[in-house]
Amino acid sequence: MILEVAILNVKPGLAEDFELAFGQAQKIITAMPGYLNHQLQRCIEDSDRYLLMVNWESLEAHTQGFRQSESYQGWRRLLHHFYDPFPVVEHYQALTLPDL
Amino acid sequence: MILEVAILNVKPGLAEDFELAFGQAQKIITAMPGYLNHQLQRCIEDSDRYLLMVNWESLEAHTQGFRQSESYQGWRRLLHHFYDPFPVVEHYQALTLPDL
Repeated sequence: MILEVAILNVKPGLAEDFELAFGQAQKIITAMPGYLNHQLQRCIEDSDRYLLMVNWESLEAHTQGFRQSESYQGWRRLLHHFYDPFPVVEHYQALTLPDL
Repeated sequence: MILEVAILNVKPGLAEDFELAFGQAQKIITAMPGYLNHQLQRCIEDSDRYLLMVNWESLEAHTQGFRQSESYQGWRRLLHHFYDPFPVVEHYQALTLPDL
């Protein structure tokens, strides 16, 4: 399992529109093969900032399966115009720590 | 419920030591009032980078309860010397979206 993480900085004044658009866009990812679950949370210190976390079965489910799909074009159209700067997306993997 | 989020950039070559120290340090947060759960995940694109996520009952449980506690001094001693740059910690809150 892989966690996709992106800090989303939404252009000032567009937070409400972004949330509405995200409500639509999330239907796209939840239907993708390899999608497990996601969360969108809003920053307390900066109300134009959001944290998107998506768990995927594998890195490829996101980077290839989703990003190279037709569906990704719909996701882009709904969401990408809200961001400034355009977000850096990273992937994280759970650790196996002795006491974790 | 509030999610504390920090991207931790560990000095090159110290990842293994950091993980050992974190294994100790997590005993400190898990014992704090208002602590709910936490995850430490490692970045796939940059193996010196970690994502720490801690769920707290409230913002104050973290910013006042934990950070102003005696226990925080132990946390600092175990972990802070690993970071470069020193991390920015933010807090996030779940959204109530129509379709989320």
